[in-house]
Amino acid sequence: MRARDLGVAPGIFDPGPLNAITDVGGVRVGHATVIEGDAIRTGVTAVFPHGGNVYLDRVPGAIHVGNGFGKLVGATQVRELGELETPILLTTTLCAFRAADALVEWMLAQPGMEEVRSLNPVVGETNDGVLNAVRLRPITAEHVRAALGSAREGPTPEGCVGAGTGTVAFGWKGGIGTASRVLPASLGGACVGVLVQSNFGGVLQVMGAPVGEELGRYAFRSQVEAAAGDGSILILVATDAPLSDRNLGRLAARAILGLARTGSSGANGSGDYAIAFSTSASVRRRSGAKRLVITELANQETSALFQAVIEATEEAIYNSLFTAETTTGSGRTVDAIPLDRVREVLSRHGIQRPSGRSRPA
Amino acid sequence: MRARDLGVAPGIFDPGPLNAITDVGGVRVGHATVIEGDAIRTGVTAVFPHGGNVYLDRVPGAIHVGNGFGKLVGATQVRELGELETPILLTTTLCAFRAADALVEWMLAQPGMEEVRSLNPVVGETNDGVLNAVRLRPITAEHVRAALGSAREGPTPEGCVGAGTGTVAFGWKGGIGTASRVLPASLGGACVGVLVQSNFGGVLQVMGAPVGEELGRYAFRSQVEAAAGDGSILILVATDAPLSDRNLGRLAARAILGLARTGSSGANGSGDYAIAFSTSASVRRRSGAKRLVITELANQETSALFQAVIEATEEAIYNSLFTAETTTGSGRTVDAIPLDRVREVLSRHGIQRPSGRSRPA
Amino acid sequence: MRARDLGVAPGIFDPGPLNAITDVGGVRVGHATVIEGDAIRTGVTAVFPHGGNVYLDRVPGAIHVGNGFGKLVGATQVRELGELETPILLTTTLCAFRAADALVEWMLAQPGMEEVRSLNPVVGETNDGVLNAVRLRPITAEHVRAALGSAREGPTPEGCVGAGTGTVAFGWKGGIGTASRVLPASLGGACVGVLVQSNFGGVLQVMGAPVGEELGRYAFRSQVEAAAGDGSILILVATDAPLSDRNLGRLAARAILGLARTGSSGANGSGDYAIAFSTSASVRRRSGAKRLVITELANQETSALFQAVIEATEEAIYNSLFTAETTTGSGRTVDAIPLDRVREVLSRHGIQRPSGRSRPA
Amino acid sequence: MRARDLGVAPGIFDPGPLNAITDVGGVRVGHATVIEGDAIRTGVTAVFPHGGNVYLDRVPGAIHVGNGFGKLVGATQVRELGELETPILLTTTLCAFRAADALVEWMLAQPGMEEVRSLNPVVGETNDGVLNAVRLRPITAEHVRAALGSAREGPTPEGCVGAGTGTVAFGWKGGIGTASRVLPASLGGACVGVLVQSNFGGVLQVMGAPVGEELGRYAFRSQVEAAAGDGSILILVATDAPLSDRNLGRLAARAILGLARTGSSGANGSGDYAIAFSTSASVRRRSGAKRLVITELANQETSALFQAVIEATEEAIYNSLFTAETTTGSGRTVDAIPLDRVREVLSRHGIQRPSGRSRPA
Repeated sequence: MRARDLGVAPGIFDPGPLNAITDVGGVRVGHATVIEGDAIRTGVTAVFPHGGNVYLDRVPGAIHVGNGFGKLVGATQVRELGELETPILLTTTLCAFRAADALVEWMLAQPGMEEVRSLNPVVGETNDGVLNAVRLRPITAEHVRAALGSAREGPTPEGCVGAGTGTVAFGWKGGIGTASRVLPASLGGACVGVLVQSNFGGVLQVMGAPVGEELGRYAFRSQVEAAAGDGSILILVATDAPLSDRNLGRLAARAILGLARTGSSGANGSGDYAIAFSTSASVRRRSGAKRLVITELANQETSALFQAVIEATEEAIYNSLFTAETTTGSGRTVDAIPLDRVREVLSRHGIQRPSGRSRPA
Repeated sequence: MRARDLGVAPGIFDPGPLNAITDVGGVRVGHATVIEGDAIRTGVTAVFPHGGNVYLDRVPGAIHVGNGFGKLVGATQVRELGELETPILLTTTLCAFRAADALVEWMLAQPGMEEVRSLNPVVGETNDGVLNAVRLRPITAEHVRAALGSAREGPTPEGCVGAGTGTVAFGWKGGIGTASRVLPASLGGACVGVLVQSNFGGVLQVMGAPVGEELGRYAFRSQVEAAAGDGSILILVATDAPLSDRNLGRLAARAILGLARTGSSGANGSGDYAIAFSTSASVRRRSGAKRLVITELANQETSALFQAVIEATEEAIYNSLFTAETTTGSGRTVDAIPLDRVREVLSRHGIQRPSGRSRPA
Repeated sequence: MRARDLGVAPGIFDPGPLNAITDVGGVRVGHATVIEGDAIRTGVTAVFPHGGNVYLDRVPGAIHVGNGFGKLVGATQVRELGELETPILLTTTLCAFRAADALVEWMLAQPGMEEVRSLNPVVGETNDGVLNAVRLRPITAEHVRAALGSAREGPTPEGCVGAGTGTVAFGWKGGIGTASRVLPASLGGACVGVLVQSNFGGVLQVMGAPVGEELGRYAFRSQVEAAAGDGSILILVATDAPLSDRNLGRLAARAILGLARTGSSGANGSGDYAIAFSTSASVRRRSGAKRLVITELANQETSALFQAVIEATEEAIYNSLFTAETTTGSGRTVDAIPLDRVREVLSRHGIQRPSGRSRPA
Repeated sequence: MRARDLGVAPGIFDPGPLNAITDVGGVRVGHATVIEGDAIRTGVTAVFPHGGNVYLDRVPGAIHVGNGFGKLVGATQVRELGELETPILLTTTLCAFRAADALVEWMLAQPGMEEVRSLNPVVGETNDGVLNAVRLRPITAEHVRAALGSAREGPTPEGCVGAGTGTVAFGWKGGIGTASRVLPASLGGACVGVLVQSNFGGVLQVMGAPVGEELGRYAFRSQVEAAAGDGSILILVATDAPLSDRNLGRLAARAILGLARTGSSGANGSGDYAIAFSTSASVRRRSGAKRLVITELANQETSALFQAVIEATEEAIYNSLFTAETTTGSGRTVDAIPLDRVREVLSRHGIQRPSGRSRPA
């Protein structure tokens, strides 16, 4: 059950055909779901900006740090050079480094990489330690290769898959979620896709409806649960709009605004990161080229993209919650959010989006 | 009519007695409303962190830039030194510099300032150019002195006053708004107060209810209005919690999350800034002291404050809208948001906060 | 007497014909020197990136904050949008805001600006309070207009002129200085020009020779002079290399490395800022254009430009010192650095650059 | 042969007894030198801020990015929380991630860490790929444990040791270098220690003397060597002065100024990072404490520390060069800098510091 199946369709723009990050042409997503015995509930998710070698054909990119309590690998070089040179991995906190190591190994082994001696892997993580025995650090290079190798265009699974296998959001089972928006032609027609690994807390609201409160599960409810907002979220933003790395940084910042709308307060212990990149050929950077010949959007053409990022992020988070399933691991069970009760709350708050709602021209 | 009078009470924490930034002890607010002829609809708002000389008794402070399309004066020194040494002014875009100049003049004339030769005035601005003839640049030193001189503790007016006299938010009349939150004793009991100058756009939602769409006035509705999200907002955050400048920067960042919940998308042309400071005596910095003896909250004690900032910012923005009045200036009329219609939308979306709702213990 | 006349020619690259920021084609510099009675020794310097209207034809630009104890106006918008939309002014600390105000007024009055309602003036400052009665705040709009109006290409005066009229550097009279570098054709052939307003301290070294120590005047020499490092420097960097705003930010950061080589330690009280822009037509941004068609240098083509910025900054600072004259103001006299004694120190340290030294091919 | 043995004693302050980072009380340094066959010339260096468990007793810390072309692990959390919670490792580029992984493993196994599920390892790297077969990625967890396990107070080896085993600086053999400064009592008496892993390029100057040019080896000498400036440097700064994380960030920034004085231009490909921390008990952060009771230096007490950082960094870099030995690896030989020729150049430039030179009182 995705958000739209419950009438939850935040914002004013329409999604793309898949309502997924893979609506942005060329973006590929792969997952390795790692479930072992009672204790291991985790995984790896890989996102490629395009079907080629990302080191040789780089994309402009930016990382925005909403709250930096996280171990994201690769931040300073992305900021300095304004580009991604590897696919992006998501995984579990204490395995971020070995995932980065495996990504390096995998990249170095690709054709055309024989002389490469420097590489900046980008790996995000959240801490799935409620359901997963994080101290066992189960992720291996094989898992990373599996995630990378399985990446493909088209529909991508959501919920308890890949890096979302063991995550918890707002006290319910979280996971992978995705969504997209396509701007109307009058606003440029670009596509924005978002994929999240949700593992954070706060006071859940769904399009404003106080689901967390009405279901009696939210941060700060009592002193005991005061830390419930801790956790993290990684948000990946892809667009085919031709943007500079600076404007991609602004897009990434808007993903955190979408996060805010779901009820996150960016708790101290939450590592909230957004990574944005453009797949447009007109801003692509061929490794070794001395000059870049670029056509990019001017600053003032970004506003509708900002709105689209916020909408897609909000919906991707709902999708991650609504598609996740009750999961048991490490002796604990985290329930899927009860959709029937969510539906009741939504209904009481008038959220049942009319199918024929007017859209921007 | 304030937000709570309409049943709009975002979040889980309770406001302070005034539900205003002045619930934080010692904070003083003053306004100079400047209305002249048909063309001038603007003003100055001044906020003091305490009743003394801010240069001699400095407060730790931080500025967070949500979107930097603005002329805020004073940013780099606040970041370097982590402190405020003047009261904060808010005014109209093209007059920010002369307001800063007048603030310098006023400060230099205070007792005890006879030897001071360097001063970092902090002035935020938004562009009230719909109703105000911004190019006439009407703000004078006298207006600044009037705002500074009228600053006091206690209730502060909202809506079309001071720097909010001519502002427009979400296509309706905006202005000054304020709100506060007091943490329960179990979470430390600190107070957070917010004051906003609202002059931005987007797709207005009130606690999630799609007021902007249902009233037919929102950004991107048609190509013509595509820029409607432009504008700006200045958000001032005061707290009596003893925080380092670094943690105040984190608080300021959360104010932008509160902004996001009202439907802003941080449009390209919107200068979205938050300035946070702590009034706590235990982090106060006496000018000239060689060592600071400080008691401050540890990082992990900030999460509830983050939540409080978000709630108070959201409510302050609603207050700025709901208290503003229809205003005519420079040949244009901007309507107050029609509260009866807002009430209908809220009602359809189940927003009528039960008076006895349970709160965090 | 410029640095080269003393055999001081730091670095490996050659200067342009003027050894000035105006070697970068189109850059114009103007000065208003303000000397009144015994107390006023100050001024305004204006730098235009090109001969047109900078608001309508914007240049990519960046500001790097070496040490943010300064009142620089305009920083956050330049960072957000990556561009300059006004000429840059330099002046005295407490007048930065009225200079910005006057710059706004001047810009709004230019042809083609009739509808402009937002403008981001960029004004740097240093505190010339040793020789200048800063609290009198003597700069007027007329001074600003004079500096702007006198701007021209070609040779530009140095030393006690414009914003350098009253400044002090390393305990000697400072002022305006400029220098340039032209890369060899094999490294691209671009030109980098630097202009500084020097008003800082430290332990002066000239190409490493310990001039400050040998002349007995340096920061920390005794407890009394412990603050001698305070002060500030504004460094403007122009280049005709086609660079993105991100890479211009990297150039600006290198200016601070050039500053370091002269003996600055970036003292607490020193506002050390660098502003870089590109004059290249291939990165120019026409106001209102929806798309930018750009040809820019790739990241790896920047290294020689970095070296050039460092060299030109170092030399511009020496020029500012060596061309300044003994000045009396506000009851104090600050001596020009004694060039004969400098020459002795340089000689003892083998600094007498051979005219025929080999250069990069 | 250390720099002082050649009369190279930059700056005005005196070193501590060891002229090493370990002059800062409690700081411990360990090395694992990894030499295998013909191809492997690399290693690991570990620096502990104190003798206890760094996770449980955290030190305020900051990372300054001079040029972010590097893979430094841990940056965003250090910035967000202002603290270090692990010792710092230095190693070779493509092994940074597995070093981080091994550091996590080692930390989790320490007493008192049984419940820890989140950890932010800080690992810097430079690319020793001239002498070392970086693509073989030889660093193992055992090497990391060896470096950590061997850490101790007191004298620390320099040159071709640990992470400096295979590095190259200015075209000569680089390595590990260290130095320190002790402020005179009148300036507070604090100690600043620096340790570098030098692997960068530029136009070497030693206290200004143009050693690189006179030895005919420098960046940009011909088109072929245009990239010679690439490489990286990691600079660790320890102090016993009680500083906030913000002021430690300012110290870290000054390390880059010391780097500049040696002739680095911060080339595009150089990852130039400085990490600063305070060992003072009065700013120590006990994990889990709700409030921090701190005595720290006010902003204006930092200037002499800034000067000290610059001096110690400059000297540490010279030490790294002058103590390194000619090394052959991967079929290439990199010479130690020829000290006799350096001495000649120094002599011609008057660098032979008189033993009895006057110092600040």
